[in-house]
Amino acid sequence: LPPSVGSLYMNIFSHCRPMATQKLLVPPPAALLQPLLVPDRLMLGPGPSNVPPRILAAGGRQLIGHIHEEMFQIMDEIKVGIQYAFQTQNALTLAISGTGHCAMEAALLNTVEPGDAVLVAVNGIWGERAVDVSQRLGADIHQLVKPAGEYFTLKEIEEGLAQHMPSLLFITHGESSTGVVQPLDGLGDLCHRFNCLLLVDAVASLGGTPILMDQQGIDILYTGSQKVLNAPPGTAPISFSERMFPHISRGGLVKFGGVGGERIYSPISLLFSPRATIALPTGLENSWKLHKENSIYLCEGLQRLGFTLFVKEPEARLPTVNAAWVPSGYDWKEITTFILNTHGIEISGGLGPSAGKVLRIGLMGYNSTKFNIDRVLHALQDALQHCHKSKM
Amino acid sequence: LPPSVGSLYMNIFSHCRPMATQKLLVPPPAALLQPLLVPDRLMLGPGPSNVPPRILAAGGRQLIGHIHEEMFQIMDEIKVGIQYAFQTQNALTLAISGTGHCAMEAALLNTVEPGDAVLVAVNGIWGERAVDVSQRLGADIHQLVKPAGEYFTLKEIEEGLAQHMPSLLFITHGESSTGVVQPLDGLGDLCHRFNCLLLVDAVASLGGTPILMDQQGIDILYTGSQKVLNAPPGTAPISFSERMFPHISRGGLVKFGGVGGERIYSPISLLFSPRATIALPTGLENSWKLHKENSIYLCEGLQRLGFTLFVKEPEARLPTVNAAWVPSGYDWKEITTFILNTHGIEISGGLGPSAGKVLRIGLMGYNSTKFNIDRVLHALQDALQHCHKSKM
Repeated sequence: LPPSVGSLYMNIFSHCRPMATQKLLVPPPAALLQPLLVPDRLMLGPGPSNVPPRILAAGGRQLIGHIHEEMFQIMDEIKVGIQYAFQTQNALTLAISGTGHCAMEAALLNTVEPGDAVLVAVNGIWGERAVDVSQRLGADIHQLVKPAGEYFTLKEIEEGLAQHMPSLLFITHGESSTGVVQPLDGLGDLCHRFNCLLLVDAVASLGGTPILMDQQGIDILYTGSQKVLNAPPGTAPISFSERMFPHISRGGLVKFGGVGGERIYSPISLLFSPRATIALPTGLENSWKLHKENSIYLCEGLQRLGFTLFVKEPEARLPTVNAAWVPSGYDWKEITTFILNTHGIEISGGLGPSAGKVLRIGLMGYNSTKFNIDRVLHALQDALQHCHKSKM
Repeated sequence: LPPSVGSLYMNIFSHCRPMATQKLLVPPPAALLQPLLVPDRLMLGPGPSNVPPRILAAGGRQLIGHIHEEMFQIMDEIKVGIQYAFQTQNALTLAISGTGHCAMEAALLNTVEPGDAVLVAVNGIWGERAVDVSQRLGADIHQLVKPAGEYFTLKEIEEGLAQHMPSLLFITHGESSTGVVQPLDGLGDLCHRFNCLLLVDAVASLGGTPILMDQQGIDILYTGSQKVLNAPPGTAPISFSERMFPHISRGGLVKFGGVGGERIYSPISLLFSPRATIALPTGLENSWKLHKENSIYLCEGLQRLGFTLFVKEPEARLPTVNAAWVPSGYDWKEITTFILNTHGIEISGGLGPSAGKVLRIGLMGYNSTKFNIDRVLHALQDALQHCHKSKM
């Protein structure tokens, strides 16, 4: 056994004595004497998008208490806003405190128990991530795999369901790593005929291309705040159908401030921005129409510059994240760095299966304008002239 | 087997057709046409505290990308700021994306495996919560219990360690439910002699009363952004000693954006505020001195009004959260509601073991001023005159 510590008792309140007795061994950091450096950028990557002044102002309001009546009202308002944006009447609809990735974890953690058969549709990074998270949860995982840039047909999904008989299907609506949109009509009915729940990731797509949670029979749907909704990252709208209720009650660490739990410890002012944007300022139909039109305008411009679009079928292109092949002989990183440094515009390279192959240009909400598209097309033209082109 | 779904294939791109084919069944919510309601309040509860204009302005800056160079620099700056505020040189020091409660879960999730013996010091709500979270993680839990308003002596802790031989001790530095501060000098050495890690919750205390992570031998320490640091809630500074490393590698869902993982999916602008406040504008020593002096000033004022302080020993009173018994015959809720509605000041009732018994007045960072204390003392005096007093 260790020695007695009696001799220390005399010193027990040394921390309340005059300051001379506390020696600070770590000095104040000089770096923090410099002002915060936040350059202005046009954010045309796959998210986050820019935040319009009205929403920045909402998020910059003074705090109130997390259990003040006004805070519960704001949470109620966000809930009805999500119900509209998701087109659902689900009672269990809320913004969780975390990024879209956190919503993916919350969705899987509350649905998957060790040994559950889970079918994951993998045609890009988000399916891969869902496999990873489900694996950590001990699921019996089956993958339905398609090449990057393609989507799944109902027939392919039906075969996967029939073969593996999963209790859950995970599928991505807007696969932002490749710029493909997954058709969802009929998918809920199909899954339910196989007694399988349907979990859809709509982080990159919601508000930019149609999704109708109840009509399409989706059981769990989530998105992020920092894409089409143009709020800062850190909140994630999520909704669960009644079919999910038996599963949620089995869930893990969700009691405090989480899904299905008490309303405590909300991030307060971080919810002011979603409150200002969740119902989409233009309304859903106008927002879908705007994103589609602007995506076509961008894709036409890219093709005029000689780019080849990554997703072949025009109707399968995600309007919010537009992917084009890196032109032959160019280095993607040199192009994105040139555009960032010379034009103050963020565009992105590939991710996961598209890494090194594509450039991705995001047009989300407030950022989806013809003016911004002209700017980024001009910047790309400039990049193709100035960046190094290797010998072919 | 379910019927074939072949007939649905024709309709697979209906969601890209003209808008007339999508019928929205959930109308835009009328509530969201009203402006956001956020009243101005002086937040003198146990947190969140008010956010000063300089920090609000930092948090209201436009977004940059989560993997932009400037964002990594901001995260580096926050890290050295936390190292100063915690007085540690631990390399694994970061702000996680979540409230202080999320930090508690992250700390336990990365430390506790099923069957591990965990000793939890319970003298208020935070020990109770740690028991709850550890139970969900499958720990073999032992509780060291003291009455609300008291702290643990080294002798008591030594006996608990000797009896249960835990691999982890959880203890709360500033028990905000009762307003007591836990002495920490000598505790790390004591735990390590028993081959036990020391996990300290400093959510309500950090920056307001001395804590010296390395000198006091603390292995895991965390706080929240919305207390003395005066930032919005949603980020939680946390640090792990090298003794923790073997445990972290066993951890669960921490790969993405979490502890010890890659730097992805940070909440971007939510980190601008901690960057502006983490090194404490006045410096640590001045901040400790200020909180102590102002707490004494408040306590004297409360006693002049006839209040009895909940923590008997003056040196054991937490300067950031000051608890006093609800005066005999009064209803706590009537008092706090009167002060909120009539004076625009939030003070709080009890929580957990102090629920219904006490009033709690928080003086945190920017809010810890004699001017604010005079305001709340005046409001309390007014409440004692106007609130209903039952027959004794």
